[in-house]
Amino acid sequence: MNVSLSQKCIAEFFGTFVLVFIGTGSAVLAGAHVGFLGIAFAFGISVLAMVYAIGYISGCHINPAITISMLAFGKISGKDAVGYIIAQILGAIVASGILYLIASGKADYSLAANGLGQNGVGDGSPDKYPLMSGMIAEIVLTAIFLIVVHGSTSKNTGNGAFAGVAIGLALTMIHIVGIPVTGVSVNPARSIGPAIFVGGAALANLWVFIVGPIIGGLIGGVIWKLYDNK
Amino acid sequence: MNVSLSQKCIAEFFGTFVLVFIGTGSAVLAGAHVGFLGIAFAFGISVLAMVYAIGYISGCHINPAITISMLAFGKISGKDAVGYIIAQILGAIVASGILYLIASGKADYSLAANGLGQNGVGDGSPDKYPLMSGMIAEIVLTAIFLIVVHGSTSKNTGNGAFAGVAIGLALTMIHIVGIPVTGVSVNPARSIGPAIFVGGAALANLWVFIVGPIIGGLIGGVIWKLYDNK
Amino acid sequence: MNVSLSQKCIAEFFGTFVLVFIGTGSAVLAGAHVGFLGIAFAFGISVLAMVYAIGYISGCHINPAITISMLAFGKISGKDAVGYIIAQILGAIVASGILYLIASGKADYSLAANGLGQNGVGDGSPDKYPLMSGMIAEIVLTAIFLIVVHGSTSKNTGNGAFAGVAIGLALTMIHIVGIPVTGVSVNPARSIGPAIFVGGAALANLWVFIVGPIIGGLIGGVIWKLYDNK
Amino acid sequence: MNVSLSQKCIAEFFGTFVLVFIGTGSAVLAGAHVGFLGIAFAFGISVLAMVYAIGYISGCHINPAITISMLAFGKISGKDAVGYIIAQILGAIVASGILYLIASGKADYSLAANGLGQNGVGDGSPDKYPLMSGMIAEIVLTAIFLIVVHGSTSKNTGNGAFAGVAIGLALTMIHIVGIPVTGVSVNPARSIGPAIFVGGAALANLWVFIVGPIIGGLIGGVIWKLYDNK
Repeated sequence: MNVSLSQKCIAEFFGTFVLVFIGTGSAVLAGAHVGFLGIAFAFGISVLAMVYAIGYISGCHINPAITISMLAFGKISGKDAVGYIIAQILGAIVASGILYLIASGKADYSLAANGLGQNGVGDGSPDKYPLMSGMIAEIVLTAIFLIVVHGSTSKNTGNGAFAGVAIGLALTMIHIVGIPVTGVSVNPARSIGPAIFVGGAALANLWVFIVGPIIGGLIGGVIWKLYDNK
Repeated sequence: MNVSLSQKCIAEFFGTFVLVFIGTGSAVLAGAHVGFLGIAFAFGISVLAMVYAIGYISGCHINPAITISMLAFGKISGKDAVGYIIAQILGAIVASGILYLIASGKADYSLAANGLGQNGVGDGSPDKYPLMSGMIAEIVLTAIFLIVVHGSTSKNTGNGAFAGVAIGLALTMIHIVGIPVTGVSVNPARSIGPAIFVGGAALANLWVFIVGPIIGGLIGGVIWKLYDNK
Repeated sequence: MNVSLSQKCIAEFFGTFVLVFIGTGSAVLAGAHVGFLGIAFAFGISVLAMVYAIGYISGCHINPAITISMLAFGKISGKDAVGYIIAQILGAIVASGILYLIASGKADYSLAANGLGQNGVGDGSPDKYPLMSGMIAEIVLTAIFLIVVHGSTSKNTGNGAFAGVAIGLALTMIHIVGIPVTGVSVNPARSIGPAIFVGGAALANLWVFIVGPIIGGLIGGVIWKLYDNK
Repeated sequence: MNVSLSQKCIAEFFGTFVLVFIGTGSAVLAGAHVGFLGIAFAFGISVLAMVYAIGYISGCHINPAITISMLAFGKISGKDAVGYIIAQILGAIVASGILYLIASGKADYSLAANGLGQNGVGDGSPDKYPLMSGMIAEIVLTAIFLIVVHGSTSKNTGNGAFAGVAIGLALTMIHIVGIPVTGVSVNPARSIGPAIFVGGAALANLWVFIVGPIIGGLIGGVIWKLYDNK
């Protein structure tokens, strides 16, 4: 099947839309009911489902940290990578907008008080972890995520069909561990979407959730290359 | 294997029976114990299990919004679609009836007070979301569901065997996000079953859970076609 | 691979041991921590894991209701079925014994007060459902279970490798719905193990969890045959 | 693909790092939010993900009890086994160190009060189970784990690709049952990592979590050989 770059970008747009709408939506609309474990499953399952729904078109990056790590290891061209990242960020922003539309229908909802599932450190961290803890967590967790992404999709593995299960559930375990620290980004697009609407500290700390995941994603790729160098 | 339409309709009848008995049953019998996260897993796993139990016979739609979206994109004939939808609605009604039989054995159960897992907006919404929020949520969530359904079963994907895992767990993530808003339909048959027994507001608002999922299902198909047009 | 009946019975013995040790163990040792949802996952995952661990030897019935339904539809010989059922019951009894050994080490554990995860109706039902509700629930839930078992392992499906995922998670959804009603048996061996140690009402009501699952398992097989008659 | 021992050891180092960072990290950072069920999923998913991420390089033991059981049944050479076990222990220690770095950034964190997810019996057991209950639980649970490991990866099964799902989720069910008893080791490396930092009783009881899992792992292998002797 011959797929054009615009089709790939459409797939990445809607894939990231689903990730952000479901993931941050679970926090905003249902967090009080399902807890951090429910939010962790929502994020992870959104990726699992989209790998099988769009993976055969675009590879289902839906995360600039993945696209940049793929670019660094020669798995995507620079031109495609730019298109992917723009589509991912736009999908995340639209998802946050529609989520805001639904949430604001509720009588006791206010953006200032309830947010849109934005990431944070310090006062913005769910359990008040400082910037340094948040940055280390984002780097380590994204490195773990990219080890799973690169490893489970390696041309040397015979079980590539299971990559969606492994990568999706890996995002769930990453959220179980990391939500108390930063709310878990490991994905700059996922952080940009809510931050644009929420503003304030979410926007001021946004750099942490761009720099951290990109560094972590590159480290994860380097680690993968250490054991899979063919 | 040559399968007749009546066999397909039997499969759809029992498939929808299982979806509604397990999904709404988890809310009615066990909701106080397992919370919204448990209900979300019950709904999602019921679809995952039935895809592998009846999918090889009927494709396991067990949802009129899926059948109509399949019809719109030429994946099922009009005659078969009518049979499927009738079977789905009948399966849902029988499931609600047997669930009522079990629940009403409990001393403190009353249909008026506890319901049968019906969907609702306004006063019928778990967290009191208004009609407009409920309608948007049903449309967006069903569109997401149908992107996963069409994408994971596309003839262009090489991982079609995983469709049951992707679609089933997608229904779980959709419920995690949406239960507080409408109880989540994304499936007219699932809403018709309980509404017939509960009556009142459940019946008055039933149109939302017929119109919303059908519109959303068609939108999801259109989105899928944007990136998978071969 | 040529497998003897004694090897199959050894596999069924240990498979049922794992199901009962993990399933009822989650209730006895961890129920207060993980709730009904955690118990539901423990039961379901035990079956999922054992399908892949012993399924290639014995088919992984680990449940007399499955073996009898398989016998009724000509999928196992009478001689093998007798061996399977004896092995299953013995495995369940040994599991309950070792579980009792671990639990009784705790200072505040008493068998009379805490039980061993036995099934019950009336006063023995977690939410005090009467005998009639319990019997209907066991029949319907076992019928659903056997639809999944027969369907996902049909020679007509092309996705038989996923049967373990479908059947295991189906047991989880069945437990989510049914634990409040009877604690969920759908498996006579699983009920016999604890009842022998607990005695009293658990033993007096044991017939419900032998008769109900066997009837339900046969009904499930009949339903499957209605749509898959080749 | 020709893989050197050093590549395998690198894979085992990072695999065990992920297991311990995610598993004990979920307890230390998120335990108060996600409960024992969330911790159980974190541990299990970490193994599921790493099987697909590194399994094609090293087989993904990431657990000395697995490596020793594999050695006993001739599935790995003695030289490789020594390298694997050293890598596993080092990976676990580094994971505990980085986890301590993140956790200690929180104002109300103290190592003495909160620990690092160490295992324990007696006063160190979450529900105060005595040494004998803890030892039996570790032996039985590791035996169950190794039945799943050996069975699902047997050369006689046709579903070896599902081993990661079966083994990973098996670790989840084992944690659901056993966290109240010992916090669940079934993996000496996972216990050594935190104990080195925490010291005291964690170090004094460490032998239980080395001896118990090794004995259990060998028993699990013997049971597997009883039914799969070709």
